[in-house]
Amino acid sequence: MDSNIFKTVSYGLFIISTEWEGTKNGYVANTVFQVTAEPPKFGISCHKDNFTAAMILNRKRFSVSVLSQNCERELINKFGYRSGAKNDKFEGTEFFNTSEGIPVVTEGSVSWMAFELTETIDLGSHYLFIGLLKEGAVLSEETPLTYSYFHTVFKGIAPKNAPTYLSKEMRKEAAQAKPVSEPEPAKKLQKWECMDCGWVYDPAVGDPDNGVAPGTAFEDIPDDWTCPDCGAEKSEFEPVD
Amino acid sequence: MDSNIFKTVSYGLFIISTEWEGTKNGYVANTVFQVTAEPPKFGISCHKDNFTAAMILNRKRFSVSVLSQNCERELINKFGYRSGAKNDKFEGTEFFNTSEGIPVVTEGSVSWMAFELTETIDLGSHYLFIGLLKEGAVLSEETPLTYSYFHTVFKGIAPKNAPTYLSKEMRKEAAQAKPVSEPEPAKKLQKWECMDCGWVYDPAVGDPDNGVAPGTAFEDIPDDWTCPDCGAEKSEFEPVD
Repeated sequence: MDSNIFKTVSYGLFIISTEWEGTKNGYVANTVFQVTAEPPKFGISCHKDNFTAAMILNRKRFSVSVLSQNCERELINKFGYRSGAKNDKFEGTEFFNTSEGIPVVTEGSVSWMAFELTETIDLGSHYLFIGLLKEGAVLSEETPLTYSYFHTVFKGIAPKNAPTYLSKEMRKEAAQAKPVSEPEPAKKLQKWECMDCGWVYDPAVGDPDNGVAPGTAFEDIPDDWTCPDCGAEKSEFEPVD
Repeated sequence: MDSNIFKTVSYGLFIISTEWEGTKNGYVANTVFQVTAEPPKFGISCHKDNFTAAMILNRKRFSVSVLSQNCERELINKFGYRSGAKNDKFEGTEFFNTSEGIPVVTEGSVSWMAFELTETIDLGSHYLFIGLLKEGAVLSEETPLTYSYFHTVFKGIAPKNAPTYLSKEMRKEAAQAKPVSEPEPAKKLQKWECMDCGWVYDPAVGDPDNGVAPGTAFEDIPDDWTCPDCGAEKSEFEPVD
């Protein structure tokens, strides 16, 4: 499977924070999404290895800071790539505590929200936490940072515990298949023409009637496939300029 | 609570499709998000009133088409604002059926993914469906459509059953509070200065030590609040130009 498909899904970028027995912690996440409107509930996916996960389970409260496109890369480094077990990430960071004592990062953020944990779903490597929105506010008119902007402009790689993390092998494969953001069409989307009848194979369309799904590169079609128009063999096809 | 905070969370825009007993259906969604990396699982939030929800529960399979920024508005209208109970939304739409017989919209889409339903979480108004990614491919190099682009350029309003739907009253309130995308600062972020000592109240910072959360407009601070620097009353403050 072409792992570039993962890059076509849009996300924002956020700092999730909580507190437990006097210790504050937070981490960078891209999976924050509203799941119901009335009452307003949001979901976040949190790796079980994250120091914050056990704290949220105990404290049953967490906050979300929506990062700005203008936030400092250093803020993301601090909250995204270092363990809170060894560092106080809040030292030197602009934040405040809610009336319930939950830290909320305001630095580099366009808005904040505070949640009460209502459901926890065990998804193997991650917990999916569902939170009821209790309070929140807009802090700035700046554009929210998107995951795609972070990747393109900040050249960011997802931390190891992110749900959208790609292993070194997957990143290598994705790079070889060419990133989605490249201006010229990736080789995978090369069209091929039947030299016998002129029928053109378009990978974006595929040949689903004959078991070839849209998005299948010509090279990946089974060798016994034939031209759906004239029955010519696969070897009769040439790449279209 | 300022409902503009909902607009600061980033999403893509997608068509979710399935099939049950010979009937195909699909709907437009913005809440599609990866929840685990290994194995790759995604979550989607689906209103129980959606014709598709019961079909996914029965069929235990669904597909996701990631919409392109260049897709036709009419495609979104067709899948987003009409009930599949009365219309065959796939008529006149480019799509194919997976080997398992699940329809996948390819029209106006940059990629597609097919899922097996692994978990269903009942969230009151919505089901949160968790799906294991079985197959998928990139279809185009175009930019994926984001929910914010849809709102700004397409002037779209979320369908009534979307998790991010705002009621008429909430939209009115949000419009009055000024949208986040406006270039000049909203009135809510107006700074106020103490005429006695010169201390400036910044709504983005608030006065959390005295119970005023960041994002609180000066007008919304309780009347018994006083200047944290000199103790002057709230009435001693003037707006900063």
